[in-house]
Amino acid sequence: MKQYNVGVLGATGAVGQEMLKILQQRNFPVKDLRPLASARSAGTKIEFMGEQVPIVETTDKAFSGLDIVLGAAENDIAEKFAPHILEAGAVFVDNSSAFRLREDVPLIVPEINPEDVKWHKGILSNPNCTTIITLMALSGIARVTEIETMVASSYQAVSGAGIAGMRELQEEVAASFKGESYAPKAFPYPIAYNVIPQIGSRQFMGYTSEEMKMQNEGRKILHLPEMKVSCTCVRVPVLRSHSISALIRTKDKISVEQARSLIAAAPGCRLVDDLDNKQYPMPLDTSDQDLVFVGRIREDLTDDHGLNFWCCGDQIRKGAALNTIQIAELL
Amino acid sequence: MKQYNVGVLGATGAVGQEMLKILQQRNFPVKDLRPLASARSAGTKIEFMGEQVPIVETTDKAFSGLDIVLGAAENDIAEKFAPHILEAGAVFVDNSSAFRLREDVPLIVPEINPEDVKWHKGILSNPNCTTIITLMALSGIARVTEIETMVASSYQAVSGAGIAGMRELQEEVAASFKGESYAPKAFPYPIAYNVIPQIGSRQFMGYTSEEMKMQNEGRKILHLPEMKVSCTCVRVPVLRSHSISALIRTKDKISVEQARSLIAAAPGCRLVDDLDNKQYPMPLDTSDQDLVFVGRIREDLTDDHGLNFWCCGDQIRKGAALNTIQIAELL
Repeated sequence: MKQYNVGVLGATGAVGQEMLKILQQRNFPVKDLRPLASARSAGTKIEFMGEQVPIVETTDKAFSGLDIVLGAAENDIAEKFAPHILEAGAVFVDNSSAFRLREDVPLIVPEINPEDVKWHKGILSNPNCTTIITLMALSGIARVTEIETMVASSYQAVSGAGIAGMRELQEEVAASFKGESYAPKAFPYPIAYNVIPQIGSRQFMGYTSEEMKMQNEGRKILHLPEMKVSCTCVRVPVLRSHSISALIRTKDKISVEQARSLIAAAPGCRLVDDLDNKQYPMPLDTSDQDLVFVGRIREDLTDDHGLNFWCCGDQIRKGAALNTIQIAELL
Repeated sequence: MKQYNVGVLGATGAVGQEMLKILQQRNFPVKDLRPLASARSAGTKIEFMGEQVPIVETTDKAFSGLDIVLGAAENDIAEKFAPHILEAGAVFVDNSSAFRLREDVPLIVPEINPEDVKWHKGILSNPNCTTIITLMALSGIARVTEIETMVASSYQAVSGAGIAGMRELQEEVAASFKGESYAPKAFPYPIAYNVIPQIGSRQFMGYTSEEMKMQNEGRKILHLPEMKVSCTCVRVPVLRSHSISALIRTKDKISVEQARSLIAAAPGCRLVDDLDNKQYPMPLDTSDQDLVFVGRIREDLTDDHGLNFWCCGDQIRKGAALNTIQIAELL
């Protein structure tokens, strides 16, 4: 079996660390691993497949000999180093939003549009976490009819702001428990005992960048350039699973029973939909695992072709690290 | 000025205690106060307007001489004692859901349908907390055009489950902070670091009783018997303010600018809508005060006559105790 030299760009972040874990859990055919991070972490050793591997400082020349680079860094880092990754002859599977909407870059959810990996020109993008989880939930339905519109409200975990976000929620809770004050850094306001209806910055008609990803990335992944999405993205005091309340309108009417069958059969999804027995997706149940849980499936009371559902998925795994590695596996 | 003998049914609960506070804050013309609770609390004294007032056990005969009874008890208690309250000649302003949809009972949000108090026959109902807060937010718009449909997802505080709900969140956080385990009682699952997509029990087509209140009570309050609402109600780890992400479709198109003016001018509402300066309603800012904050107003991207907004209000005050006392003031 062919083995690959794999770089992880941003190896010390929440998503980077999870990528290292998943590469091992899934026995990805790694020949040599090269964890890349800032100069600050260079030289620190991490354990990978029973060996101590030193972290390498990310420089223009740091990619030579690599076959694949998994990107777990911010947009500016991804943009800065992408040319050097391509120059070194590696394929860049990137989790930042820098390249997602570029026409020459496929944007992939492996369970939905694996065929799009074929036309890559060196860079492939991993979609936004909330978009991945929501599209996974409706992927079974999207296979049989067009999604025309979606109205979505998210309940997003603090892990979306990385390790700093997770630490901030825990420190805030600790401070409030001790009666101490705490100055928020990762978020603009306290997130403990609060919800914050802004993720990202203003982008289009009063919608934030995070809210527009659901429409813009969703259109590209589902090959539905006309799909319209009204999205409201909200941060909640949850550690690492995102939840989404969504209403879709479909071209052909899909009954609740059909929707249940399609979701139950969709790869990567688990149907958890039994209200009488208090069974529905919850972030505590979906953390640190790979499936997107879907439930609360109901006919829309406002439109004959609408369906409501509720879904949860681990933001760090399926929302980021796992999906990126699944793209690399497709390659 | 005429003064009234006022009973508070369920005076020891979260809403009952808040009612006692608000009666004093608003200088409600109370002649004699009679706090009513279970036998367990009877005899305990509470302070009201500088005097020590003993709690009275709720019995069939406990209402004699009262002019008004404010109800802050559960449905079964409200149903059991309503006939005795009417028999005693008092008017019953009830916060339970027992009588809300009865044809001979007005359901009132004083800023929206004060005229409906006129046809009461002894019982008036206070609406569901999430419904009050959402309808308050759209009340300015509802004055100029019909709301045809609404899609809403809620972020509801634990105070909706009373003092027990608030205590549970705080005890769970403390237990998790100390690394101890905690068995949930007020909610079916842990609520700390979690969200629970069920409030109430299954009622109609997979929707819960809480979710159907938005449509059923909304129709009655707004006098829009055809209004259709798809609602998803979710409990979040917030102490006492509910938030709602809502999308309304109106008969006449309302622009974002018009909506902002109408909301800014609506009694009981505060417009907080400046994304660039990170100004929007949040539960921590709306707790322990009377206004409903409204922001994130955006054109619906899926329908020409749609508007998205986000609102927050204190569940115990405007969502329950304050609104009940405002109804009593109208009388």
